[in-house]
Amino acid sequence: MGILFDILLPDQNEQPLYQQLYIQIREQIRNGSIADGVRLPSVRSLQLQLNISKTPIETAYQMLTAEGYAVSRPRSGLYVANPHKPISAGFLDSESSKSPIKINPKPQEPTSVQHADFIDFDPTALDHASFSIRTWSKMLKEALENHSGMIGKYGNPLGEHGLRVMIADYLRNSRGVICSPEQIVIGVGMAYSIGILTKLLRDTRRIAFEEPGYSLVRDQFMLNDCEILPIPLTDKGISLTDLEASTAQMVYVTPSHQFPTGCTMPYPERERLLEWAIAKKAYIIEDDYDGEFRYVGKPIPSLQSLDSYGRVIYIGTFSKALTPALRMNYMVLPSQLIERLSNMTHELVYAPSRVEQWAMQSFIEQGHWYRHIRKVRNLYRKRHHHLIALIQEHLGNNVEITGQNAGLHIQLTVKKRQTSEQLVASAAEAGVKVYDFRKMWMEMNQYPVKYPKLYLGFAGLSPADMEIGIRLLRKAWFME
Amino acid sequence: MGILFDILLPDQNEQPLYQQLYIQIREQIRNGSIADGVRLPSVRSLQLQLNISKTPIETAYQMLTAEGYAVSRPRSGLYVANPHKPISAGFLDSESSKSPIKINPKPQEPTSVQHADFIDFDPTALDHASFSIRTWSKMLKEALENHSGMIGKYGNPLGEHGLRVMIADYLRNSRGVICSPEQIVIGVGMAYSIGILTKLLRDTRRIAFEEPGYSLVRDQFMLNDCEILPIPLTDKGISLTDLEASTAQMVYVTPSHQFPTGCTMPYPERERLLEWAIAKKAYIIEDDYDGEFRYVGKPIPSLQSLDSYGRVIYIGTFSKALTPALRMNYMVLPSQLIERLSNMTHELVYAPSRVEQWAMQSFIEQGHWYRHIRKVRNLYRKRHHHLIALIQEHLGNNVEITGQNAGLHIQLTVKKRQTSEQLVASAAEAGVKVYDFRKMWMEMNQYPVKYPKLYLGFAGLSPADMEIGIRLLRKAWFME
Repeated sequence: MGILFDILLPDQNEQPLYQQLYIQIREQIRNGSIADGVRLPSVRSLQLQLNISKTPIETAYQMLTAEGYAVSRPRSGLYVANPHKPISAGFLDSESSKSPIKINPKPQEPTSVQHADFIDFDPTALDHASFSIRTWSKMLKEALENHSGMIGKYGNPLGEHGLRVMIADYLRNSRGVICSPEQIVIGVGMAYSIGILTKLLRDTRRIAFEEPGYSLVRDQFMLNDCEILPIPLTDKGISLTDLEASTAQMVYVTPSHQFPTGCTMPYPERERLLEWAIAKKAYIIEDDYDGEFRYVGKPIPSLQSLDSYGRVIYIGTFSKALTPALRMNYMVLPSQLIERLSNMTHELVYAPSRVEQWAMQSFIEQGHWYRHIRKVRNLYRKRHHHLIALIQEHLGNNVEITGQNAGLHIQLTVKKRQTSEQLVASAAEAGVKVYDFRKMWMEMNQYPVKYPKLYLGFAGLSPADMEIGIRLLRKAWFME
Repeated sequence: MGILFDILLPDQNEQPLYQQLYIQIREQIRNGSIADGVRLPSVRSLQLQLNISKTPIETAYQMLTAEGYAVSRPRSGLYVANPHKPISAGFLDSESSKSPIKINPKPQEPTSVQHADFIDFDPTALDHASFSIRTWSKMLKEALENHSGMIGKYGNPLGEHGLRVMIADYLRNSRGVICSPEQIVIGVGMAYSIGILTKLLRDTRRIAFEEPGYSLVRDQFMLNDCEILPIPLTDKGISLTDLEASTAQMVYVTPSHQFPTGCTMPYPERERLLEWAIAKKAYIIEDDYDGEFRYVGKPIPSLQSLDSYGRVIYIGTFSKALTPALRMNYMVLPSQLIERLSNMTHELVYAPSRVEQWAMQSFIEQGHWYRHIRKVRNLYRKRHHHLIALIQEHLGNNVEITGQNAGLHIQLTVKKRQTSEQLVASAAEAGVKVYDFRKMWMEMNQYPVKYPKLYLGFAGLSPADMEIGIRLLRKAWFME
């Protein structure tokens, strides 16, 4: 039997149990109450001591292990090993630490200088270790072997039929999307999908866009000679009153998890949005870019699932839940648009690599995709909670967190009389990359002036790196 | 010692030796002069008998084996086995043969109905057996393992640097292209590349285009709101006199092997084209889509290799020499255009799958790419000669072949008072797919009216299928 912990889990604490456990054990390791080299109590004994379930203990232990506060010895148990204190204290106190040394002893990608030198709260990065190299290699190998006779030919420009069947199944099961495989267009990313739409809908030039909204998509409309009508946001998504008063012919929305504010459009607003589209014969582009990730409350079905008039164009991606390295996405077109697309005399569509489409088909067919989603949803839920806990702990009342129920990023309002550019710059000086919310606004005169806003992704950062990052931010922003 | 052949190889015959050998042996098998089950003479003994080198004999034997006229028995030799006569005679004589049965006993892709039922002279299809599934699987596996730490992140939208280094090397060595890796933009196909150019060169709207020319590319310019100025062809490529007299701001050419006529632009014309571009400050798009395949005479370096003024935009692809299933191509931009691209505020570029880019990098780095090119160049040279021999044998003076020095297709003028649509339709009735040259013309009033023209690809068809196809065409077109 190991030590008995001095741990309190008050009922009123709103932090999840694993988080409370993790923080208390970590602090005791740090301040020396639990000495280096000591064996931690087994999950079972701590469970008996605290009268809670196994899961939060296992999670807290995994986090401690991941961060190097404990090491597992085979057939023996978990031992305290605190490599952090001297190193992190050292470089956190150093005035000239522009390139903080990562605590992680083995950098996983030695060729990527940026990754090694910066703590990057990149909102597009994912956890690379969750992606099973072995499984994906196997899928690729099988794809090549099973389809070797087709390797000499171009595929269906809309995408391989087998994969479209799998995606239609998945979308119906998980996002409530109602469609046949024939309505699905496999693509190579958002820029590609928007390119198709703007060419397919030649007379649709005035696009209503969330303000603030996803600037990369807005840029694609502008590149394709569309006019953007910025429509303000409410806390329930795009302002329907403003949309209804506009001359928009189409609208782009992110109803599951607005980018970048993180709000979700409630059911009555969705109905009202659909009514607008039906009345105006307008199309709604629903970008469900991270619909897989919802951490609080029930999953909300897609807007498309409410549409029986064929007004919603649904777009989803494998870049958030699986990997951005494949550049594979999909678009569900209402049948009348698929028909129009098939009648185009000019070749408008081309699908990504057939080999990877066949691999993706098997990946879904064999259940790997569903397992992967469950795995990363749990992982990112933990990272999400962990980041929020770290911010609360280290940045406290100096900041406000919003949009934290879903997705792979949070929004941070920094209560400081500085511009967001200044904050991004001082963070970069300290070796941390954070992202400027301001760029998501099209018209700067609508940008709220009181406090600067930033956004931070968390999916690609280990808890240890997150903590270094947040501590460095505190130092950079609040300790001059 | 086997039989002695009754073979004559006259000096004046312009057919290659292997072709003459192949045809004479095949005819003797067919007409029974060489009986079924007989062992063919060894390469060595035939070499002594005919006083020629080994290669043409080996080639002819390989063709006979591929078509089933001979089977190899281990440690014994090659034996005559003629499975063709009864079957092909049978179905060639049948009046209702809309779905000819392929002689090939094992259909390689049972799911592809089209492939199983049609002899398709698809100009975009390649020989699937030449693509080494095993090597490519290995490259993919290594790519995933060597870059696992980067799988969670988007790559450089211009393409992975390592692959760009490999492509720059390859293009310098094999096509004389002068460029740094930084000038290379990895893409997902021609439509993507043209999309970038038309957005990068906003004020360049009037595009001179070969007439006839590659309609798929022409369509992409039109989709991107460019005006096409069709410029007639001479037998030396695009008419420079007409180009000079035009108001074109840019020109698209296929100087190595004009699509679809197959002519090659000679050196003096290339110089004159460059002079036009320098004087007009215009860009030349050089589409070197099948520059790897030249069967007669010396390889001709790219137009880009002559350009020291940064006027040539060079585009090449992996879809012709390796596989169209990957959808990977590359564009070499003059430095001033790369600079302009980097300064664009809107995201214009996105590269294909990083995994496949990494795999392609290793494929080139480890020498597989160079070996593959040599292998398929030899294979397609044989298929090319074989198709021409078949056409000469079965269609004779009823047709004229042009553009036969390079590439993966030939051009056929059919001396018949029918439209090309009628010929395509009657071929399809007989179960053969041929392609209408006419679609490559933008302005129908310039289309030569005397005889219809078609084009036929050969890279994706076995010699046996080719022969079935050409015999069916004879029946469909000339034996009513």
